[in-house]
Amino acid sequence: MRSGLPSEVQMIREIQKIASRPRDRRLALSIGDDAAAFRMRRGRLVLISTDALVEGIHFDFRYCSAEDLGWKALAVNLSDIAAMGGTPLYVTTSIALPSEVTPGFVRRFYRGLTALARQHEVTLIGGDTCRSPRGIFLDVTIIGEVEPRRMLTRRSGMPGDLLYVTGELGGSAIGLEMLSRSRKRPARSVTARRHLRPLPRCTAGRFLAERRLPSAMIDLSDGLSTDLNHLCRQSGVGAMIEASQIPLPGIPIQQRRLLSKDPLHYALHGGEDYELLFAVPSRLGPRVPKHIHGLPVHEIGCLTRTPGVWLLHGNDKQQLLPGGFDHFAP
Amino acid sequence: MRSGLPSEVQMIREIQKIASRPRDRRLALSIGDDAAAFRMRRGRLVLISTDALVEGIHFDFRYCSAEDLGWKALAVNLSDIAAMGGTPLYVTTSIALPSEVTPGFVRRFYRGLTALARQHEVTLIGGDTCRSPRGIFLDVTIIGEVEPRRMLTRRSGMPGDLLYVTGELGGSAIGLEMLSRSRKRPARSVTARRHLRPLPRCTAGRFLAERRLPSAMIDLSDGLSTDLNHLCRQSGVGAMIEASQIPLPGIPIQQRRLLSKDPLHYALHGGEDYELLFAVPSRLGPRVPKHIHGLPVHEIGCLTRTPGVWLLHGNDKQQLLPGGFDHFAP
Repeated sequence: MRSGLPSEVQMIREIQKIASRPRDRRLALSIGDDAAAFRMRRGRLVLISTDALVEGIHFDFRYCSAEDLGWKALAVNLSDIAAMGGTPLYVTTSIALPSEVTPGFVRRFYRGLTALARQHEVTLIGGDTCRSPRGIFLDVTIIGEVEPRRMLTRRSGMPGDLLYVTGELGGSAIGLEMLSRSRKRPARSVTARRHLRPLPRCTAGRFLAERRLPSAMIDLSDGLSTDLNHLCRQSGVGAMIEASQIPLPGIPIQQRRLLSKDPLHYALHGGEDYELLFAVPSRLGPRVPKHIHGLPVHEIGCLTRTPGVWLLHGNDKQQLLPGGFDHFAP
Repeated sequence: MRSGLPSEVQMIREIQKIASRPRDRRLALSIGDDAAAFRMRRGRLVLISTDALVEGIHFDFRYCSAEDLGWKALAVNLSDIAAMGGTPLYVTTSIALPSEVTPGFVRRFYRGLTALARQHEVTLIGGDTCRSPRGIFLDVTIIGEVEPRRMLTRRSGMPGDLLYVTGELGGSAIGLEMLSRSRKRPARSVTARRHLRPLPRCTAGRFLAERRLPSAMIDLSDGLSTDLNHLCRQSGVGAMIEASQIPLPGIPIQQRRLLSKDPLHYALHGGEDYELLFAVPSRLGPRVPKHIHGLPVHEIGCLTRTPGVWLLHGNDKQQLLPGGFDHFAP
C-alpha cells in the first residue's frame, strides 16, 4: 500500500470495478458514501449475519490463496442465509491489512469474493479497509431476505422429527488435514477444494423453505456434533443419530491411509462443511427428496423428547458432546 | 476464556442479557440463530455501514477502557447513519479476541456499547465472536432507515452552496495527543472524552434531512481536510473555507501549552471528531439555525465551480490537501 489519500480512493475505485454487477433497481446507493442504501420487497423480512475470518485462526496462506480467502469469506456468510431458507442480496466487507500486503492481494481477494457473489446474484455494496499491525482480519456481513412464514430457525424442532443433512460431511476437515501436512502449496485435490472453496447451500435451503418441510434448520459450520447440540438446545429437544447413515466423502485410498483419524471423526467433529442440517416432521418425511438439484440429502436420525444428543454406532450408543471446532479452544 | 462450547453459549447469553431492550415488534429474530431477522417500514430505504477498529491502530488500552471501546465502536457507525440523515435501528458486532482477554472485558465492552445504543434506541441483534492470535479486532455493522427523498449523500453539492459544520473541530485529536503523552491512565478531561466517547450527531442529521436543507453531507471521521476533499470529489466541485470561521474547542491554557501544533492544525487534519459537514444551497442558508437542539452550527465557507479545496487564512490562501487520518499511512 502506498500512503496518502489516493491509495484509499484508488482501492475503492478498483473494488467498485471488480464488484460491478448488472443494474439493480433496488440499490439506491452503493460503495463510496457514508452508508449503502437499498429497498426491500414489501412484506419480506431482512436477514443479517456476520462472520469474521482471522489469519492464523481460520486461514493460513501456506495453502490458501487470496482468491480462496475471498470466496470463503463470502461462502460462510451465504451459508447462514441458506440456513434461514432465505435469499442473499447484498454483502459488505471489512478488511484490516498489514503493511506488507500488496494491492494485488486485495484485487485477488475481491476477485475470489465476487466470483461466488455472481453465482448467487449478490452485490458488494460497501465496507471498510484499514491497517492491521499484524495479520489479516476479515469480517463479512451478509444481507438477505425471506418471507416471514418461510423463515427457518433453530428453535422449532419437535420430538419425533426426522433429521437430514445435505451433501457429505467431514470433507472440509480432511481437506484441511491434507493441506496442512503438505510442505509446499499442494495440488488442488477435490478434498482440498472442499476446505478452500465451500459451496453454500442457498438453493437447497430455499427449496426446503418454499415447501415448508423443515421444522428447524442450521448450517454445519462448527461440526455436526456442535451444531446438532445447538439445534437441540434451542429447540428444547434431544437427538439420536446413526453413524452408519452419516454420508462420508469418497477419499482415495492413498489419502485415507495418511489421515490421523477415522473418516467418521471428521464428519462428526470436523466443521466447516457448510452443509445444511434440518429436522422434518415425520409425516412430511416422504416428501423430502433424495436429491435437491443434484445435491444428495440423507436421513441420519431423529429428534427425541429426552435432552442430549446420542450416536448409535453398531451396538454401541454414546453421547455426542459438542466436539467440533470451538472458537475459543486454546 | 475457557475452552469448550459452554464458554461461547454462556457468552452469547450474557451478551443477550446486557443488550436486552424493550420489545421491538419489528424484530422477528435476534442474537442466537444463523441470522437475525427484522421488518422494515414500508417505503423506507435500508441503510447499512461498517467500521472496523483495530488494537494498536485505532485504540490503545493505555488510555482507553473496554467501556470506551464499546462506546466508540458503535459511535463511529452511528455517525455514518447520521451523515445520511437516517435513523439507526440495529447493530451487529464482530469481535476477535486474544486468549488473555477476560470475560470481564467482554462484559464491559458490551456495557459501553449498549449504553450508547440505548441513547439512540438501537438494538444489538447479532455478530460473531472468535479468537485472535494477537490484538483485538472489532467490526461493527449498523443498519438504519431513511425516507428516500430525505436521504443525504456526498454527491449532490453544487457550486455556491454554503458549507457548515456542527460542534467544534480538533477536540478529538487534541484529546488523543494529551492521552498518549500521559504515562499513567490520565484523568478524564473534557478533551479526553471527545476522543474516547464521541457523540454521533444523529439528531442533527435527522433535523437537517427532515427540513431538506443540505444538498450534500458527510461525517468528519478522517479530518476536515480529507472529508471535505471527499465531498468535493464526489460532488464534482471545489471548496473555499475560512480558517477564522472554523470552530475550535476551548482548551485550558496549561493544556494548550503542551500541544505540539496550533489548534487549527488539529481542526483541519485531526480526524475522529464525528461532527457533520454539510453543504446548503445559498437561498436556504438563512434557514440553517445557529444551534440544533443545543449543538452549535457554524458556516465555514462555500463550494466552488473550480475543483480543489482552498483555505483562506488571513491574507494567505493555500490549497488544503487531504492531510487527515489516512487508513494506509505507514
